[in-house]
Amino acid sequence: MVNRQIDSLETYYDFISAPPEYHKRRQSITQPDILDIETDPTELYAGIAISKRENKIEVGIAIHDGTYSVDFAIHRIYLAENSDIEEKRQMIEDHLISSLDKYRKKHVCKLLGAGLIVELDSVSPNLCARLWSELDIVPIICKSNAILDQDAPPPNVDELADSAARKCLDVFGPTKQPHISIGYRKMVQIDMAGRIQLTTTDDYQRSVHEKTWRAVQKYVKEVRNRNIRIAFFSATPQGQDVASMRHALLRFLHCEGVYVEWFVPKPRPEIFGIMRTIHEILQGTVGPETYIKDEQLQEIEDWIIANAERYWLTEKGPLKAPHEGGADFIVVDDLHMQELIRIAKKKDLKRPVIFRNHIGGIRDDLVQKDGSAAQQVWRSMWACIKRADIFVSHPVRSYAPGDVPAAEVALLPATTDWLDGLNKEMQDWDIKYNLHAFSLICRDQGLPQLAYPKRPYIIAHFYTSNGISDVIKSYAKFRERFIVVPVKQIPQLVICGHSLIEDPNELMIHDQTISLINGYFSQYKDDIIVVRLGPSDQMLNAIMSLSTVALQLSTQEGFEVKVSEALHKGKPVIATSTDGNQLQIENGRNGYLVPPGDHDAVAKHLYDLTTNKELYRKISLYARDHVSDEVSTVGNALSWLYLASSMTRGQRLQPKGRWVNDLAREAVNEPYSENEPRLPRHLSAHNVEADERSQLKTPGYS
Amino acid sequence: MVNRQIDSLETYYDFISAPPEYHKRRQSITQPDILDIETDPTELYAGIAISKRENKIEVGIAIHDGTYSVDFAIHRIYLAENSDIEEKRQMIEDHLISSLDKYRKKHVCKLLGAGLIVELDSVSPNLCARLWSELDIVPIICKSNAILDQDAPPPNVDELADSAARKCLDVFGPTKQPHISIGYRKMVQIDMAGRIQLTTTDDYQRSVHEKTWRAVQKYVKEVRNRNIRIAFFSATPQGQDVASMRHALLRFLHCEGVYVEWFVPKPRPEIFGIMRTIHEILQGTVGPETYIKDEQLQEIEDWIIANAERYWLTEKGPLKAPHEGGADFIVVDDLHMQELIRIAKKKDLKRPVIFRNHIGGIRDDLVQKDGSAAQQVWRSMWACIKRADIFVSHPVRSYAPGDVPAAEVALLPATTDWLDGLNKEMQDWDIKYNLHAFSLICRDQGLPQLAYPKRPYIIAHFYTSNGISDVIKSYAKFRERFIVVPVKQIPQLVICGHSLIEDPNELMIHDQTISLINGYFSQYKDDIIVVRLGPSDQMLNAIMSLSTVALQLSTQEGFEVKVSEALHKGKPVIATSTDGNQLQIENGRNGYLVPPGDHDAVAKHLYDLTTNKELYRKISLYARDHVSDEVSTVGNALSWLYLASSMTRGQRLQPKGRWVNDLAREAVNEPYSENEPRLPRHLSAHNVEADERSQLKTPGYS
Repeated sequence: MVNRQIDSLETYYDFISAPPEYHKRRQSITQPDILDIETDPTELYAGIAISKRENKIEVGIAIHDGTYSVDFAIHRIYLAENSDIEEKRQMIEDHLISSLDKYRKKHVCKLLGAGLIVELDSVSPNLCARLWSELDIVPIICKSNAILDQDAPPPNVDELADSAARKCLDVFGPTKQPHISIGYRKMVQIDMAGRIQLTTTDDYQRSVHEKTWRAVQKYVKEVRNRNIRIAFFSATPQGQDVASMRHALLRFLHCEGVYVEWFVPKPRPEIFGIMRTIHEILQGTVGPETYIKDEQLQEIEDWIIANAERYWLTEKGPLKAPHEGGADFIVVDDLHMQELIRIAKKKDLKRPVIFRNHIGGIRDDLVQKDGSAAQQVWRSMWACIKRADIFVSHPVRSYAPGDVPAAEVALLPATTDWLDGLNKEMQDWDIKYNLHAFSLICRDQGLPQLAYPKRPYIIAHFYTSNGISDVIKSYAKFRERFIVVPVKQIPQLVICGHSLIEDPNELMIHDQTISLINGYFSQYKDDIIVVRLGPSDQMLNAIMSLSTVALQLSTQEGFEVKVSEALHKGKPVIATSTDGNQLQIENGRNGYLVPPGDHDAVAKHLYDLTTNKELYRKISLYARDHVSDEVSTVGNALSWLYLASSMTRGQRLQPKGRWVNDLAREAVNEPYSENEPRLPRHLSAHNVEADERSQLKTPGYS
Repeated sequence: MVNRQIDSLETYYDFISAPPEYHKRRQSITQPDILDIETDPTELYAGIAISKRENKIEVGIAIHDGTYSVDFAIHRIYLAENSDIEEKRQMIEDHLISSLDKYRKKHVCKLLGAGLIVELDSVSPNLCARLWSELDIVPIICKSNAILDQDAPPPNVDELADSAARKCLDVFGPTKQPHISIGYRKMVQIDMAGRIQLTTTDDYQRSVHEKTWRAVQKYVKEVRNRNIRIAFFSATPQGQDVASMRHALLRFLHCEGVYVEWFVPKPRPEIFGIMRTIHEILQGTVGPETYIKDEQLQEIEDWIIANAERYWLTEKGPLKAPHEGGADFIVVDDLHMQELIRIAKKKDLKRPVIFRNHIGGIRDDLVQKDGSAAQQVWRSMWACIKRADIFVSHPVRSYAPGDVPAAEVALLPATTDWLDGLNKEMQDWDIKYNLHAFSLICRDQGLPQLAYPKRPYIIAHFYTSNGISDVIKSYAKFRERFIVVPVKQIPQLVICGHSLIEDPNELMIHDQTISLINGYFSQYKDDIIVVRLGPSDQMLNAIMSLSTVALQLSTQEGFEVKVSEALHKGKPVIATSTDGNQLQIENGRNGYLVPPGDHDAVAKHLYDLTTNKELYRKISLYARDHVSDEVSTVGNALSWLYLASSMTRGQRLQPKGRWVNDLAREAVNEPYSENEPRLPRHLSAHNVEADERSQLKTPGYS
């Protein structure tokens, strides 16, 4: 039956379950491989195991529905005597990927995660990354208990696969996302301490230009050879901004073998409440009557000290001096943890400590105003922050108040990751699954339904409610212009975001927005979807992937990674001409810059982009092809590794407001070539005047 | 501000978050405490902590959305000097229950679980059970790490509450149900080894009649005093039948301090496949061409032996002889684990070993037929089973083939638990939440929508597809009779179930059913909802609670716990007159028995019950008040404890086909009184003739 001259495959035991009737009814019979957005796929998990006996390899696949083990298969691969190891790996990988792909299509399901026994990961080291990139499955490596149990007979492949499926499930919480795990010393366990493997070095290399890659590899080598220990500290392991950037950075650096760790304190909701008020005071979003009491600042300080003593100053703790086993390079990544700078410097004055601020929109006028609440909190923080060797800021003015000496400021933009759930390229099946999940959320919340694919849609994201009303008003203007076109060609508008907390102020603005839509703009209310989403990166990815144009009309001075993400997917972006947006949008090339509040301008660009196909194509391609490596994980790593490697050589660094990226490239002699995309330097925070900026409002714009 | 003369309460820090707009829009403004079925509540988790300092108790409540900590509150209770401990407990309990109740109503949310720090459980030992019974919250007791950390300052109550909320979340899987955990030696960790506490002894006592309670307490005392170790073995820790009964039994027995354990083998999907085929052969649902190979039987045997050696024959393992620390009383609860009987008896011939069969519908004619596949498998199993001391069977003939000697058969019905998620009485808020979740499932699967509360509905459950078409045909007949009534008064029909596996045969019948509805009965298709549900007990509970009448038209000879459950909720049951149903339905009193396939009879009863209010009320009350304790967990415990206590005294037991329950009550001199509900003895399996049974088709039935 089986030809043993060449590698060959036998289905020893096949999947037996059948898809339920309601799927059969709904799935298109003519195109069984295409998932209909209307279809509700079953969500399943897999377990995959392998065992080698003599000349055959057995592969077991178990399928689990979260409660029960629902199906399984055993396939046997007979190996020819002359088959080489590389071919074998490839064969197993290809076979598993195609088996799971067939399974999901036949059973109309979405496989959310897969547990792989560790032996399989050794045989097929690329399998994990392929599961993630090709099938959007979160791969989880499971140690088999059987290994501990030397006397027992070798376990069967079905038993191993079943056990792997259950272990995989343990990782998923009720949000269907893997738990974030915090380990010993409150260290963030990136990707469950490596049990989840999403990417390979090759994937990263393909994601950037050659020079960036060469430069980063030089630093990786040095930092690795010198065994430099790098420690990041921030207040929380979760969230869309700092935390997701850190997860991505450490994922990459671990992949490259760099000794880097990330620590967070044990959370205290009461402290977080005070921190939120401090943000509001610095950003001037609360009235001058809001003050922080000295006891409250003291509470934050006590909390940080208690955490440092409990977790980070114990034996070999990261805050210990380097010669005692502590970290060689420390980054304090949060405006409330500045106390750590004092502690770290006390342990070893020479050890480099970097402060990085991620709070934008700091109102320098308030900070400089004597007796203001903003001045009070800033001064109390600055007393510690100033002890750091350098102050890393977003390349936007409002991230560094006036009393930060320009000589010590280094610029580093927020970054995003091209390989993670937010940005990776997904197959149609997975995009449709996520869009379906999105439509269920809209339905459950009583929102209008997305008409896609019948109609296109425009996307806008919000993290604060700032700018939402401009989005709605601009959309209304745009609809007025569209009066002649049949409705089914008019794009809808999706405004989505995820608030960190159900903040009463944010919700008030959000509710006002809804009132605006239902009141003044009620004629468009069935076409405007304002939705708060859960934590699924892939859902945001899918919504971005299928959109036509992205809007970014917030007037807050942020550097929006959402803009980078939209451009990277080839979506023209229409944005307000704030400092941050000006760094990313080349007016008329990858999108448009408009003055804040100019709804007519937004409407005109929307009209042009959605009616002029040639224009759209040109802008879309330019956007996709001109994203700088600086806004990606690898670019981010380059900057951090440069700082770690140069500053730990005892060198004193005076960045003088320059971009870390430029210093890094220069130091390894990899200068920018003419065509390599780079964020514009002449616009950045510390060497641009307000009047220069105002010029940007006009070109290419009538 | 605070009056310290009496116990008093201060809100030190209150919840700050606000409910999202779409809830405000949807919730009834006039009745904010009532959840509208249309409303989609947010699903949240809580963490609760307590800390006592001087004369005040601080209570912290953290709220988590599965991704982020979203809200928290700190309340302070000042204790008067003369306050007694019992009052204090009561005050804390009442305060927490009412705070969470207010929170869910204000925020329109469903709290699925709550983590409680272990200190809180010591102060308020009833809090867990009240969270479960009053708010339908799964309470999880969390050990605080801080205890291990002696040097650290005492943690704050907000930190503790936040940590408890996260620990609670770790317990919930993607199905939003707590994981089932299997521990050392493959022991099933009932309610996560006691971390989940749903019930108190008082709750159980209230659930049965006085005599049952007295009898069970006598055995508890004896078994506990003699420190008898009881071990159950079955093939899987999950499922609606054996497993849910075992979880409930062990929960109760652990609550009573009985030394009882339950073990399961490490699952092997390939073996489970063979086991399924064996069931089909014994029940005659496959053709005579289906055989089991000797190697396959050998595989099951090897698997059991391997598990026994790996987990249960090691030091102090349950299968070791009692004098070596093994169990004193062993129950093998599965038709495929009979090999354990041989092993257990080999270790100690005198130790009592019980076999219990839970597979119904065994075709004795096939088993007796020479050369049949059924005979082959039965004989191979019987070779082991016959070594057990007694054979415990459901009180239905088809659970014990002819060659089981009548003298060794003891009868014990399947039981259900009045306090668990399936049956407990829920508040309106939780019932509505579950019904809403049910309506989402229907919508996602493209099924007709339930019109409740606008229209009533009839409920039917399925575990096999047997009888579904009778349900539909009966409903159609019933609809024909209803021709004069306005549609909005006509009940809909809900047919729901949960298949263990997506079995192709089951699915085929299921699909045929759908075709029947969409074809011949298409005029009623918008009123018939055939739905496969997930693992939520509370959802099944809610659907049962709000239904009007239950149907049980399967012709398989089962003893349906679903019938007990419907009766217990006061739902009249219309059932086919099979052996099992006859034990539970008193024709004309708590429901009706009808001949299999008599759709007119079903329709007539449905018509009477849904139009004659007085009749309905009478039958409903009788149903609710005449459920025998025998079908509940406490009744089940009585039987098992009787067997364990009497047989471990070296007594040889010859049950001779009697009910274990009767033997148990007699032995402690607690005979049945006239009015105590009891299943009819004259009908049970081993002393009733077919012609006697046939009489039951007529009385009270025209």
